[in-house]
Formats: sequence, structure tokens, C-alpha cells
Amino acid sequence: MSYSISKLTAHCAESLQCLGVSRDDAEAVAQVLISADMRGIHSHGCVRLTGYAACLQSGGIAAGAQYRLLSEGRAFALMDAGRGLGIPATLHAAALAVKKARDAGVAVVNVRNSHHHGACGYYALQCANAGMVGLCMSTGDPIMAATGSASRAIGNNPFSYAAPAGRYRAICYDIAMSAVAAGKISMAADEGREIPPGWLLDPLGRPTTDPQQYALGGALVPFGGYKGYGLSMMVEVLAGILSGAALLEEIHAWNEDPRAGGNVGHCIIAIDPRQLNPGFDVSARAEEMIERLKAMPKAPDVDAIRFPGELEQLREADALANGLTLPPATEQALRRLAEQTGIAFTPEALAQ
Amino acid sequence: MSYSISKLTAHCAESLQCLGVSRDDAEAVAQVLISADMRGIHSHGCVRLTGYAACLQSGGIAAGAQYRLLSEGRAFALMDAGRGLGIPATLHAAALAVKKARDAGVAVVNVRNSHHHGACGYYALQCANAGMVGLCMSTGDPIMAATGSASRAIGNNPFSYAAPAGRYRAICYDIAMSAVAAGKISMAADEGREIPPGWLLDPLGRPTTDPQQYALGGALVPFGGYKGYGLSMMVEVLAGILSGAALLEEIHAWNEDPRAGGNVGHCIIAIDPRQLNPGFDVSARAEEMIERLKAMPKAPDVDAIRFPGELEQLREADALANGLTLPPATEQALRRLAEQTGIAFTPEALAQ
Repeated sequence: MSYSISKLTAHCAESLQCLGVSRDDAEAVAQVLISADMRGIHSHGCVRLTGYAACLQSGGIAAGAQYRLLSEGRAFALMDAGRGLGIPATLHAAALAVKKARDAGVAVVNVRNSHHHGACGYYALQCANAGMVGLCMSTGDPIMAATGSASRAIGNNPFSYAAPAGRYRAICYDIAMSAVAAGKISMAADEGREIPPGWLLDPLGRPTTDPQQYALGGALVPFGGYKGYGLSMMVEVLAGILSGAALLEEIHAWNEDPRAGGNVGHCIIAIDPRQLNPGFDVSARAEEMIERLKAMPKAPDVDAIRFPGELEQLREADALANGLTLPPATEQALRRLAEQTGIAFTPEALAQ
Repeated sequence: MSYSISKLTAHCAESLQCLGVSRDDAEAVAQVLISADMRGIHSHGCVRLTGYAACLQSGGIAAGAQYRLLSEGRAFALMDAGRGLGIPATLHAAALAVKKARDAGVAVVNVRNSHHHGACGYYALQCANAGMVGLCMSTGDPIMAATGSASRAIGNNPFSYAAPAGRYRAICYDIAMSAVAAGKISMAADEGREIPPGWLLDPLGRPTTDPQQYALGGALVPFGGYKGYGLSMMVEVLAGILSGAALLEEIHAWNEDPRAGGNVGHCIIAIDPRQLNPGFDVSARAEEMIERLKAMPKAPDVDAIRFPGELEQLREADALANGLTLPPATEQALRRLAEQTGIAFTPEALAQ
């Protein structure tokens, strides 16, 4: 079935309000998660709500968190998110970065004492929607090996950038640093399939094709070897160290222990081309770049040369027109959320 | 034999001055290239001098280029490098970024109308040496496929970041976006060896293990598939589009046609932790992160867990103590440079 986006958003927001979250924050969280589902990034969609709910109920996330600005200048700010929800905190930081970059040409906003913030491309897109180039990144609990480590050492840290792109709307790149997402490995484990070499180390640090080794404590492998490891460290530096947030194994696995909190750090950088390069149409130039890439000869069996975020945009447009289809795991999570909140989940009532 | 760093630097600088380069610029170019050789990045060391010389002699690089600031704010600047040498232009931009970030907390400096600037990690390190976190990137002529393209589409764009790291001095990450550098493929071609799958497409866009296909127009493959392609596009956006520099195939292959110039673009971002997070010792915290990573259990057959730039630092220390060993290709380039400049290259006279 297809869900109505507005009805599903209202349902998720109402569920969060039941857990003590303010109406504004609840709506923001619902909107950001459902945006990820619309874009086909179901791993960062509504499926996360049960985890957030467990954290809210156990105190790992403070429902009524107040933000504090620990430092502020014309072009920068450091914000303490008060152990609150990561999504409204990062939306706040992104809006602040855009406002400051409009004034100063560039701005960096760091956040500490925050939590999981969903798909980090969302916040880079906020910058692109304001006509800017935006970068966003976040630390996470260590589930990935460092190059050379036998065990989990560093976060599979998300990194994103976005830029306005004329009739293509926006380039939006949003990756994590492992060769393959943990979700894909868990799925293979559920289905009893082997995984290709290069995805996972077993708990002794040996390469393995057995997906069960992940749940036993195995470590994801960085993409591109030391290149992915080094990019993950960049996120530790920019989002973790600069923010004064937790690092490496100091970041708790909130999926496993919802009470623990996270002291997750984020970093957003916004650059306003109107100041840096006045009169130059960056968005039109990005459109032209995409046109030219798309006009290149295609490799055998390739239907189109794409730009980062293009498929996600197509899926989003489809969901806006035809409603949203959710994978079974997400529907199951919403049923569990209903048990956590007491707000019934009735798919038929939320149909498009 | 081992070269004396000071004698080799003086020789290279003198050679460049013969080509009309000012003494300051000549010394800067020599120092940055020799630094790359000392760090073991010979592909971006003195071997480049013959190419720069050919460009200087044919007018592809303007020896006495004047820089112009096209826009400037407290936290940003856009600089036109006047078709000059990329190295002094980027040094100038990095110094400007550091100065502005000291004042504003963060700064972005973009450069257009520039040229090849050697190892881009050098400039990120300038920021780290000033106690800041620095990012540096540069466009380059397209020698890499886009994901899905059959042919060369986008630059193998270098990207670097650096941060101060206490007793480890600095983290310095410096990568390009292809699975493997073109130099490694050319070396395999010279030696008649096959290359592994995943490195190269032939001119029709088919994966190949024949390294000769590169010289025939084959395209490098991005590292990590779409992840490397998307990062390369980030550099096009930040260093190319924002700067108003050339993009994609507008960037000439100066290695092939030295007269063409490049209109290469660079971007440097510097963030001063002293403003963003006053009183917090970012350098000590980075040192602690490295300590903790190094203390992790090691995978089988691994002698040490390293941080980005560690091996380069060790090589640099060795070269400082014992002099510099140059690979045969670099010595051959220095002999060719002597023909271009008339300044004799006498290795014995430059010995440690």
C-alpha cells in the first residue's frame, strides 16, 4: 500500500509528542525521517523511531533539551544540544549556518552533546536550498575497523555535501565510510546468504564472508581501504574533536543501550557563492556540469550517467505524486512504536 | 646517492629563475616539490619541474603573474592567480586563509586561473602548522571516468585535510579520487605487467587489465565506485564552480600541451579552534585519538595502526637526517630540466 505523506507525518509526530517531545521538534523529526524514506534511504527513515523512542523513554535522549551557544562569532558557532534529539538540533545548526553564511560568506557550526540525526544529506540540502554549498557530517559509535585494526575502532561516519544545480535542483552526496552498510550485512545474515569478501572482519580481525560475524562483534571494512578510513577520521576531527564531543569508543551504541546517550558531534559548513563570487550563477554552472557529464559516452549496459542524489530525487518525486511505500521492517518498527507510545498504528487510516 | 636538501632546493630554484620566475616564487616551488619527494610522494615532487618548465617556456604558465583579489570579506576571498604557477598561488591563498581564520574563526579562499600545485596536502598542513584544521582541494584535467561513463569525464581531483596532533605533529590526509594513480598504471605498462581489474577502462569504456589502454585514452576508475566519483564532483563544485574556474574537459592536459594553460581552481578552508572552541586543546585531543587507535588490537600481519600522513612524516624525518634519495625517473627529469634551462645538473655537487 501507499502511505499518505501528510498522514504518516502527522502520525509519527503525534507518537513523538506522546513521549514528551514538543510539537515543533516532533514534526521536524517526522519530516526528516519521512524525507529519507521518500528518497529511498529507508535505513535512515521511520525505522529509527523505535530507537529514538527507547532513548526518550529511558532518558538517553532528553525530550525537552535546551540548546546553548558555547561560542559564537559572525562566521561560526558551537552549540550544545543538551542531550536532545539530533534531528532538531542539526536543523537548528543548519539554519544558523545558512544565516551566518548569508552575512559572512562562509560559516561553520559545530554541535556537541547531540544524538543520531538521520540522513545527514538532509542538512546539506538545507544549504543548497538556500543557494549555498553545504557540507554536513556527524560522528557515530565505532562499528568500523581502522586500516590495520582487528576490531571496531571508528565510526562509520556519515558525510554529505550539496549544491544548487539549476533544473536538476540539487546535487546531494551522502555517504558513510564502510564498503557496505551494516544493514546490508544484517539482511544477508537474516537470509542466510554469504557476503562478498571485503565487507567485514570477524571479531579476530580476519576477513570473513559470514555475515553472522557482524552481530558477534565483527567490524565493517572502510571503503577504498585507507582512503575511507582517513575520511572517517576527518569526520572525527571536524565533527568530534572541534565540537568537543565524544570520540571513537566514547560514543555509545544507542541502538544497544538506549539509556547511554551519545555526545554525538556534528559539523556543518555553509558557503554563500553570492558573496564569494558575486554575479556568477553557481547553480546554472552546476546544471551545465551535469548536462555535460550526462552527454558523455556511456559504458556498456549503463542507461544514464547520474549525479549524486539524482535517484533519491526521482524517488522523492514519485512518493510525492503517488504516496510512500514502506519496507516491511519499517512497518514492523511502526507497530513496535505503537506499543511504546500507545498511539495505534493503523496503516489503512494512513493510506494515500 | 643522497641529495642534500638545501643544495637540491637551491639548484631547483636557480633553474626556475632561469625561466623568468622570481626568486621568491622559485624557492617556494622548489621547497614544495622537494617536500613531496621527502615525504615519498615522488609523483608530485621534482619530477614535475620539466612539465612546469615547458609551460613557462611556451607561455602556458605566466612567470611573472600578478594575483588579483576578485572579492574579499573578513572570512573569505576569491583570488585570480593570473595564469601563474599553482604552487606560489596556493601558498598565498593558504596564508590568506590562515590569517582570515585567525580573525574570523573560519575562512574559505578560492583561486581561479591557476595551475598544477603539487601535493595538495602541503597547504592543508600550513593550516595545521598554524594550529588550525585545514582542507585543500584542486581541480585537474579529466583522466577519470564518471560512474557510468565510457570515457574520461572528470578530474582525478586531489583532496586533503590536516589537523594538529600533539606529539604526532599533524594528521595529513592527501588523496586523489581514482582507485589507483595513473603513475602506477604507466609503471605497469613500462614493465609489461598486467594490472588488476577495477583500475582502468579501455577507450570504449570496458574494464581492462591491459595498462597500455591508459595511454590510448582509457579512463581511470574512481575509488569506491560512486563514492569516489561523488567526492571528485565535490572538488569540481568547491574548487572549480565556486572559483569560477574551468570544469571537466575545459581543463587542459598541460602535461600534453604545455601552451594551453589550465584555469585550474583551488579551494582552501581553514578553521581556527581557538575561536570556535576556546580553551579546548584540539591538538592534544587529536593526539589522544591517535594513541587510542594505535592501542587497538591489530589485524593479523599488521605491524602498526597508522594515521593519515604518518608514513610521510617518517620519511620526511629520514630525509632531513640522511638526505634525500630520488627515484630514477626524477633524476632523469632533472637532467631534462638542465637541457631546458642550461643550468647543469651535477648530482655529485648536490650530494648530502
